[in-house]
Amino acid sequence: MKGRFITLEGGEGAGKSTMLERVAGWIEQSGAKVIKTREPGGTELAEKLREILLDRNNISLSGKSELLLMFAARAQHLDDLIRPALDRGDWVVCDRFTDATWAYQGGGRGLPSADIRALETLVHGDLKPDLTLLLDLPVEQGLRRAHRRGQADRFEQETKKFFERVRKSYLERAVQFPGRFAVIDASLAVEDVWIQIQRALQDRLGQ
Amino acid sequence: MKGRFITLEGGEGAGKSTMLERVAGWIEQSGAKVIKTREPGGTELAEKLREILLDRNNISLSGKSELLLMFAARAQHLDDLIRPALDRGDWVVCDRFTDATWAYQGGGRGLPSADIRALETLVHGDLKPDLTLLLDLPVEQGLRRAHRRGQADRFEQETKKFFERVRKSYLERAVQFPGRFAVIDASLAVEDVWIQIQRALQDRLGQ
Repeated sequence: MKGRFITLEGGEGAGKSTMLERVAGWIEQSGAKVIKTREPGGTELAEKLREILLDRNNISLSGKSELLLMFAARAQHLDDLIRPALDRGDWVVCDRFTDATWAYQGGGRGLPSADIRALETLVHGDLKPDLTLLLDLPVEQGLRRAHRRGQADRFEQETKKFFERVRKSYLERAVQFPGRFAVIDASLAVEDVWIQIQRALQDRLGQ
Repeated sequence: MKGRFITLEGGEGAGKSTMLERVAGWIEQSGAKVIKTREPGGTELAEKLREILLDRNNISLSGKSELLLMFAARAQHLDDLIRPALDRGDWVVCDRFTDATWAYQGGGRGLPSADIRALETLVHGDLKPDLTLLLDLPVEQGLRRAHRRGQADRFEQETKKFFERVRKSYLERAVQFPGRFAVIDASLAVEDVWIQIQRALQDRLGQ
């Protein structure tokens, strides 16, 4: 049996890291093996690209170059880790995937949809997550939470307007792909977010 | 007036570096300003990607990821250096460009033409070199010269068959784009190679 591919998406301070651990635990309880990973990154080489992508000093990185780097890291991640894991029957839980590219590079930076679509097709063709948990919350609340974590990376330094566009793109994708997306109200307390996620896991993936 | 864009192409040990200096000198004598650059690389950020691409230890780098990285570096190089220089009226002489991607990733690695074409369109649309000097020589002769330079990078470690495919792809492109390509016999002595290149410069670009 092929494993399932679950992605967590959302803006800054949405609580993805905490929920990723819980989702992984939920899957392990069902007896399946689970791989926890993240984008950009997930493999040694893709993590090197992550460093370049998030480095606050790389202010000259152009939108198109950023987009290509994201997909270069993704191609490596898919080949080295995600596809082999799914083929073995393991589950994969990933912090961000191509929906983040649509939200950040598409919505946030305004890069053309045609470019993103071309790269999506080139890099992963028909492979899509089985379930995407979108942790949605108001931008200001998310940024307040994120700022508490300390120094901002290259993306976290963007303006509030940028993150409003990111949020809007995420929500539009959830409307576009209702069978794959579950929108979670991430403005609530941790336990209330987790209740919603468990419900989504059971409804969408439960036997 | 827009500047002219000249690229030097060819396999290992073809003598591109030496000839690049001479071509730049020839242009300067005509009174134009000239920018010397190379791919992958040419800007601070693209040089970081060059390091990843040429690092002999990155043996896991997949073909698709390599292709995307090449174009990510190229997008940055075009935005930060090549297009601004040409717009100012400067000339640009570049050691390798997209023809190298067709030869190495297309011919050498066998990556699909459709993928390369999609990325070429995405990254530089209609921008093409005004003149491409293809320094052609038998693979064995080139590799003998290259080996004298010392330790091989990730590409130089490939097999002789790989380089035969690279050479064949280069020559096919020269046939496909005769108006842009000048094929130079690089198996000859330096001065004889230079005579051919000067003739090509005069014929194709001279007033």
